[in-house]
Amino acid sequence: MNIRKANTQDVPTLLKLIHELAIYEREPDAVKTTEDDLLRDGFGDNPLFQCLVGEIDGKVEGLALYFFTWSTWEGRPTLYLEDLFVRESTRGKGLGLTLFKNLAKIAVEKKCQRFEWSVLDWNEPARSFYHQLGANHKEGWLPYRLEGEPLQKVANSIETHQALVV
Amino acid sequence: MNIRKANTQDVPTLLKLIHELAIYEREPDAVKTTEDDLLRDGFGDNPLFQCLVGEIDGKVEGLALYFFTWSTWEGRPTLYLEDLFVRESTRGKGLGLTLFKNLAKIAVEKKCQRFEWSVLDWNEPARSFYHQLGANHKEGWLPYRLEGEPLQKVANSIETHQALVV
Repeated sequence: MNIRKANTQDVPTLLKLIHELAIYEREPDAVKTTEDDLLRDGFGDNPLFQCLVGEIDGKVEGLALYFFTWSTWEGRPTLYLEDLFVRESTRGKGLGLTLFKNLAKIAVEKKCQRFEWSVLDWNEPARSFYHQLGANHKEGWLPYRLEGEPLQKVANSIETHQALVV
Repeated sequence: MNIRKANTQDVPTLLKLIHELAIYEREPDAVKTTEDDLLRDGFGDNPLFQCLVGEIDGKVEGLALYFFTWSTWEGRPTLYLEDLFVRESTRGKGLGLTLFKNLAKIAVEKKCQRFEWSVLDWNEPARSFYHQLGANHKEGWLPYRLEGEPLQKVANSIETHQALVV
């Protein structure tokens, strides 16, 4: 078992794993991401995400894709784990746990006060895994989203004199 | 009413507004952030957050603190709004809505597919405001967090041969 940072040559495998994750999350057609998207946003000068891969016998079998956000109350970065995934055929060998521990280590090294992620409410194996590690569901906070047409509509509704002068 | 990007001279006011927000969110003692934290992480070479301020008659009365995350399914950045706050004495004049519209505009300009944030479940005025704009609560996703001692413990539990070689 070996953990390392993903590089551009991993991109086709990363995209395959993202598709496998979408199937696991019961949204097999949800992935619009392309290899170009991953290359542009993950491996340029100012990457929008970071990615670790987990190898077994030299083959990439899992990924942890993350980025740094910021907490206004802590005054510190937060490590946010967007996706943690291990191939079904490889589960049970501790690769997911090892990826997770490495993220915790990175969070501490980067002086993050918090390490955060989201879990689907029906995913009991994942929730149980996280509870055993001392993590808790943040009760009381509801995630909201605006996208597509409603987002465009709000963006276009701004009056010229109220728009930010850049 | 005027919307502009925050600058280093706004930092004392930003911190005051963050404290006022914590009082509104019923956690008056939760803010550990200092002016130095805001300066270091918001106004350096690789800022971890961006901030808009809203002025009325030349006085800063509100803020919108945000950053860009990334969606593995969209292959695009997401604009994440960490805090939107308008001073109590200034509410009802549309400053919050104007800040929000400016963020939607920035999200569209930056080719974000999504604009996201979190709301406290008891905050009905905020939830109603967002629903009217076409936003929805993302049902089924639970936010998780690991911090403090349990985070340190997980970070320290890694075996040397399983740690990332940087």
